[in-house]
Amino acid sequence: MTDPFARIRRLQASMDRHGLDALVCRLPENVVFLTEHWPIHGVSIAVLEREGRAHLLVPEIERAYANADWADVEEFGWSLLKDRDLYQEVRERLARLRDERGLASARIGVERSFEVVGSTYRAAEPIVPAEPWSAALNDVFPKATLLDGGPAVSDARKVKTAYELGKLRNANGIAEIGMRRFLAELEPGMSEIEVGAMIEHAIRSQGPGHGDARLVRASAEVAAGRGNSAGAVLLVPSTPYRIREGDLVMVELGVVVDGYWSDLTYMAVAGAEPSAEQRELHNAVLRAQRAAAAEMRPGRPWSAPDAAARRVLEEAGLLERFPHITGHGIGFRYHEFEPLLAPGADLPLEEGMVSSVEPGAYLPDVGGVRIEDIVAVGPDGPVFLSTPREPW
Amino acid sequence: MTDPFARIRRLQASMDRHGLDALVCRLPENVVFLTEHWPIHGVSIAVLEREGRAHLLVPEIERAYANADWADVEEFGWSLLKDRDLYQEVRERLARLRDERGLASARIGVERSFEVVGSTYRAAEPIVPAEPWSAALNDVFPKATLLDGGPAVSDARKVKTAYELGKLRNANGIAEIGMRRFLAELEPGMSEIEVGAMIEHAIRSQGPGHGDARLVRASAEVAAGRGNSAGAVLLVPSTPYRIREGDLVMVELGVVVDGYWSDLTYMAVAGAEPSAEQRELHNAVLRAQRAAAAEMRPGRPWSAPDAAARRVLEEAGLLERFPHITGHGIGFRYHEFEPLLAPGADLPLEEGMVSSVEPGAYLPDVGGVRIEDIVAVGPDGPVFLSTPREPW
Repeated sequence: MTDPFARIRRLQASMDRHGLDALVCRLPENVVFLTEHWPIHGVSIAVLEREGRAHLLVPEIERAYANADWADVEEFGWSLLKDRDLYQEVRERLARLRDERGLASARIGVERSFEVVGSTYRAAEPIVPAEPWSAALNDVFPKATLLDGGPAVSDARKVKTAYELGKLRNANGIAEIGMRRFLAELEPGMSEIEVGAMIEHAIRSQGPGHGDARLVRASAEVAAGRGNSAGAVLLVPSTPYRIREGDLVMVELGVVVDGYWSDLTYMAVAGAEPSAEQRELHNAVLRAQRAAAAEMRPGRPWSAPDAAARRVLEEAGLLERFPHITGHGIGFRYHEFEPLLAPGADLPLEEGMVSSVEPGAYLPDVGGVRIEDIVAVGPDGPVFLSTPREPW
Repeated sequence: MTDPFARIRRLQASMDRHGLDALVCRLPENVVFLTEHWPIHGVSIAVLEREGRAHLLVPEIERAYANADWADVEEFGWSLLKDRDLYQEVRERLARLRDERGLASARIGVERSFEVVGSTYRAAEPIVPAEPWSAALNDVFPKATLLDGGPAVSDARKVKTAYELGKLRNANGIAEIGMRRFLAELEPGMSEIEVGAMIEHAIRSQGPGHGDARLVRASAEVAAGRGNSAGAVLLVPSTPYRIREGDLVMVELGVVVDGYWSDLTYMAVAGAEPSAEQRELHNAVLRAQRAAAAEMRPGRPWSAPDAAARRVLEEAGLLERFPHITGHGIGFRYHEFEPLLAPGADLPLEEGMVSSVEPGAYLPDVGGVRIEDIVAVGPDGPVFLSTPREPW
């Protein structure tokens, strides 16, 4: 029922529309998209033609993680004494592939329009395609027409198939292991830093093996107390602040599972029942979130969920306290640009688009509240890929 | 005694030698180098002229982390509804700076020669300088001469001042919080994944506030048992494998503290005294590591520590079991290229250079052993920035 390769056919149709004979990709997010291999180091290369499956070049130390169902996998030595220079290796292998596949004079899509990129598993040291990669492509394909493949890839990536929705559901399930730990173990006296580390620990230690998960990373940032209204509007790092009884506490959590992303924001009150004003603020934001999610329907403009959230917050007298957009695409990257649930975004939502839905309201005297879930556009309306929240 | 700004004068002297009037940097590692600000998101920009201190453009949500001792700090709005497009903002601000500083016809070093980059604090989603950044630089500086600033920056970065050595010592001290936890709490029955998560938890929860540390990230990968000889030669991800009594266990740990890096590898035996063959292997690698470290002296070639390690391992009959180089520079990135402790590297070590020293030997029937510390070239010989290990 969930054909994993449906997205490859969708991509090949998009290549056809954009007049591309082949794609040569190295950004980790696109290597995942073409081959289901999440690069550990960032030197893997995926090549896809308009028919058939992809060809994947991986360093031998990543070979065990490459999926032969998705691609013809070719390994190369890299970074040991026995190995040659990376680009010498890559040039020769790409040249051989060019000749075998008859791509010498082809129209080839390469990655030119990027700046925000998805991390590799080894997030500490990204290896990004820059001048050496451009030079290698120009050398290997002197007679080909090299074009920006970004639009063709985006057209296919922006809509997720049932297979990807399953992967994203599992990533959210793993993120929720951390969020359950947060809700169960938050106590006054813990620092923001300790709470964040506890959540990451739960996910890093219990995530692999959950469903089919293998490689899992998590990053949790915690903002507590009244002070969070200024700072926690966007991602700001946890601090050594010790949480007090009755503090409003926000957790912003990014999780990646084998190249598929989750982005959740949870709220709690430390060691006490919510006060009347905390409850009122929280429940107004939750109503806004539900109203926004209800607009995740095929054909509605990207701006509709945002407008719905803003209407609810306006009725609650909180419109001025909502300074950011309502959501962003997610899937092969933490933040994708399609869709953006933002004022003025008039493109139509399509079945299979996936977005965060995360309105917030930030009150200097109470604290900030943001409630973020991941929601797909289903055939008949919203499909939550994370667990919807309840009123306080 | 430790003048924090000595590196700025060193860099300005290097700019002078390379004929650069100014540097315009956006790679996180270079923003740290010029301004001591570790970018959280990756959109901060540092500008340094041949005299005076740097000018730092930061998004307002990072403002609290920028250091006004190091740079004139200018904040700009980014990513809220009220804010303009990033590049519109950046172009106007750089253009104003160009006019104020008289840089319209200057020789300006920009970042062209990179591919391996240091992460931002927000490692999940690097924002890297690519085509939009190049286009902005060309627009803002149409009459200037834009040159690759890489060589001028490298010449200054490759040698660390006393201030940086202090920062690196603190980063290693924070990494060792995790390694002490590992040595104290490793037990048979834990999985590799659980051990790694435990180490990261110790560092993420106790690192901030250690010395002057604020922003800390850690990534620990664990390889246990005989199987690690193949897999753990380089960084490979932890698996759900449950560690058995008597297993040799290797931890590869990367830690970053406010933009300064540590890279350590530790060994232990789970729940038992080392066997005779584990002890022999471990102690041979430790002798090789000490011999390599002893060569960290001004004027010795980069290859000397590597040759010393290889001599010791050859005497122990392990030369064929040491398939990688002995070390790599470290400081503003996890792996720097100066120095490389490798066969054939004939450039001279200079006082203040810092390198990992990490020989290893990997035996299929016993397991892999690597011992990695961070060592500076002192005026009279090696200075360990991490805690030297003892024989088993």
